[in-house]
Amino acid sequence: MIRQEDTIAAIATPIGEGGISVIRISGSNALAVADRLFDGKRRIRDMASHTASFGNIIDPHNNRRVLDEVVAVVFRSPNSYTGEDIVEISCHGGMLVTKSILNVLFEAGVRHANPGEFTKRAFLNGRLDLSQAEAVADIIQARTERAHRSSLDQLKGKLSTEIDEIRNDILNFCSLIELELDFAEEDIELANRDDFANRAGRVLRRLQELIESFNVGKVYRDGIKVVIAGKPNAGKSLLLNTLLQENRAIVTDIPGTTRDTIEESLNIDGILFRIIDTAGLRETNDPVESEGVQRTLQQIERADLALMIIDYSLNMSDEDIRYIDSILDKMNELDVDPLVVLNKIDITDGKQFVDTGKLLHYPFVKISAKTGEGVDVLKKQMVNLATHGKPYQEGSVLVTNSRHRDALVRAKQSLELALASIKGEASGEFVSVDLRAALDALGEITGVVTTEDILNNIFSSFCIGK
Amino acid sequence: MIRQEDTIAAIATPIGEGGISVIRISGSNALAVADRLFDGKRRIRDMASHTASFGNIIDPHNNRRVLDEVVAVVFRSPNSYTGEDIVEISCHGGMLVTKSILNVLFEAGVRHANPGEFTKRAFLNGRLDLSQAEAVADIIQARTERAHRSSLDQLKGKLSTEIDEIRNDILNFCSLIELELDFAEEDIELANRDDFANRAGRVLRRLQELIESFNVGKVYRDGIKVVIAGKPNAGKSLLLNTLLQENRAIVTDIPGTTRDTIEESLNIDGILFRIIDTAGLRETNDPVESEGVQRTLQQIERADLALMIIDYSLNMSDEDIRYIDSILDKMNELDVDPLVVLNKIDITDGKQFVDTGKLLHYPFVKISAKTGEGVDVLKKQMVNLATHGKPYQEGSVLVTNSRHRDALVRAKQSLELALASIKGEASGEFVSVDLRAALDALGEITGVVTTEDILNNIFSSFCIGK
Repeated sequence: MIRQEDTIAAIATPIGEGGISVIRISGSNALAVADRLFDGKRRIRDMASHTASFGNIIDPHNNRRVLDEVVAVVFRSPNSYTGEDIVEISCHGGMLVTKSILNVLFEAGVRHANPGEFTKRAFLNGRLDLSQAEAVADIIQARTERAHRSSLDQLKGKLSTEIDEIRNDILNFCSLIELELDFAEEDIELANRDDFANRAGRVLRRLQELIESFNVGKVYRDGIKVVIAGKPNAGKSLLLNTLLQENRAIVTDIPGTTRDTIEESLNIDGILFRIIDTAGLRETNDPVESEGVQRTLQQIERADLALMIIDYSLNMSDEDIRYIDSILDKMNELDVDPLVVLNKIDITDGKQFVDTGKLLHYPFVKISAKTGEGVDVLKKQMVNLATHGKPYQEGSVLVTNSRHRDALVRAKQSLELALASIKGEASGEFVSVDLRAALDALGEITGVVTTEDILNNIFSSFCIGK
Repeated sequence: MIRQEDTIAAIATPIGEGGISVIRISGSNALAVADRLFDGKRRIRDMASHTASFGNIIDPHNNRRVLDEVVAVVFRSPNSYTGEDIVEISCHGGMLVTKSILNVLFEAGVRHANPGEFTKRAFLNGRLDLSQAEAVADIIQARTERAHRSSLDQLKGKLSTEIDEIRNDILNFCSLIELELDFAEEDIELANRDDFANRAGRVLRRLQELIESFNVGKVYRDGIKVVIAGKPNAGKSLLLNTLLQENRAIVTDIPGTTRDTIEESLNIDGILFRIIDTAGLRETNDPVESEGVQRTLQQIERADLALMIIDYSLNMSDEDIRYIDSILDKMNELDVDPLVVLNKIDITDGKQFVDTGKLLHYPFVKISAKTGEGVDVLKKQMVNLATHGKPYQEGSVLVTNSRHRDALVRAKQSLELALASIKGEASGEFVSVDLRAALDALGEITGVVTTEDILNNIFSSFCIGK
């Protein structure tokens, strides 16, 4: 177990006013320091692991003045979150109280924890592997149940287990190859190359699946930006309301989320659609040049998906067609998927909708935002486009982290090289070098192989207190 | 012990994202419900009081799907915050996780706690008296160390103890009077009236002290609004900066505090001065009518104290004098204390400052915002005006709650009536009625005497989860 020398503390609960706040202290001095500041029914140093005691936190440098009534919970090493001794102090949830307790801890020689430092210690002490540690941050930030569930799967080691299995298989083979090299003069074959080549083929296909799952995984984790574009009377607002009424946005009651544009959030089948409202496209004589189009295009640029709403009860003028086509072209350029939404099918009265432009070359759905007809199909189409036609299958492993995806891509490349060497009957040295590279890349995911830079990069994006 | 029938739960930590959030469950079913949802190393129903256990919260209606990895801490009745069985669940601090756990609790028949309901139950179960319960909310909202300390004193029972002593003294005498009434035919005197009259005199003086302490107590608890008024070049901004540099405002890093005007906060000797910035007074020909003055007056109306900054290096024109006098008159009308700040004493060059108006009828200090000279005296004067010349004395009891002040006023009035009856040798019945009224009023403070209305009024101002 790697021991950190110093003892750290931080407020572990969200910042603000509430019933209680929790201050977490971790490190070899956690019990001794907390003991000096705690005046309770029991001494902290005498408390068994996983027990709680009521008492006062006092300021030893200020006449033992009471700072607050608290409950202290002790977790003794190694049975704690970090693997170190931990004391968690539940105090009254005011900023002043919480800070004054933190201050006496700092005066007692405890250091303020860096972002993610508790979880980093948990990793260094072998309580979590690296992909599990990363899942902790994802769980906290999850906005849909699906995102939460895949983070929890990752925390529970679903990805790690699979990576470890693949890695062990490669490692066994690689060890045999290297053993052969040690006995090179005797020219014996310990590693069955054909057998491994077969297995490696399966592993490569699996790595490819995992790599591809990231396209969907990142959508489930981070959500997807959708811009709604359409002429003012095409039914944009009504559609938005219809969608919102059925799917209460779960992010709306989180205070303090600032947005640079007005967004509505919509959870469809576990995917968070963040819908960016546009001002509505207006016809002008020179549409491409107009400011309105420029603004909408700016919003389209930030989006992954665009709903292009058309009033299906009216025929398109030549101008309309030119105008819409120019926007579709722009979307194409920007690599934004358009979904054409033909609205007002309730009032078409059997009229024939004519479009001679590019509109119907794109995927489309016919709906009535007013009656709700077709809205289910629209939602299915949105999910379909967001997940590239491969929505999440219950029980499957999703890669949601670009760091993991990149490592998988490198592992696959190296394994392909190794396989080519094996098939070309190259020397064991060549095979071994590429297999080692694959092992290293896979090891980065779970943190078997890591660098201080990788760790700092990962944990600096955590919040303080985690 | 009064038992509440239902079991309640709420998020006890501040709302937002953080390392951990705590969900508190209290009531007779707390252990049973938590036991069904917790899949850990130990069963919750088997856990001893004040012990913690690691495990999963599962959704029993959804295939026992894991919602989060948590630590559950059990507090068994009567040794808990509410006096009831309590389970506290520390989960990952994301909104979605926290809410999904709350939801399975609600599905299991637990009710969402009302604001302050945990503390209300603590009161009903005799774990806290009413003034102590009120102190809990004050501790959370404390903005200065002094406010925090007086709330903590109140939580520790400093006020309650004194009220109880006074109450017991009156109660003993009142009981004797009432006993005499029972034996009225025998005409014996059990209650020594002279002796009690002496003691009651002391008690009345003490009640008066406590009532008066509210003038200061409310200032320490809630802070004081200060408006700075002065002509644009009088040195207002420089003074504000000088004050702020020395006294880091402790409230500035609390997110989400919205303000209807721009305020700076300043902690001087434990008092929170909330300084409202005015745009600066500008000279006009008809100052009383001008919009600038109107706006400043609106801000003065909201203030307790006004700093009127004058450039001491310049002489006042007749217009200036009329202008300043009109504002001083207005402050007088609005019952706002003005403090005249004569600034720029570093560049007066021995000139004689002449003011023929009302300026120097008010308390004043001479300072240099630039060199800092006199700023200490200014701060002392601000504290002096805020506390009506009676700043907090270490160890004294402060009444900080208007409910307590009002009850003390009623207790004092009734006791005065009783004392008058005693001195006028009125019948014991008269004395008894007024003593009972005094007892009831005092009892309201600690909650010995209370009504559902009083309780609802108090606890509805708490946050949910406390």
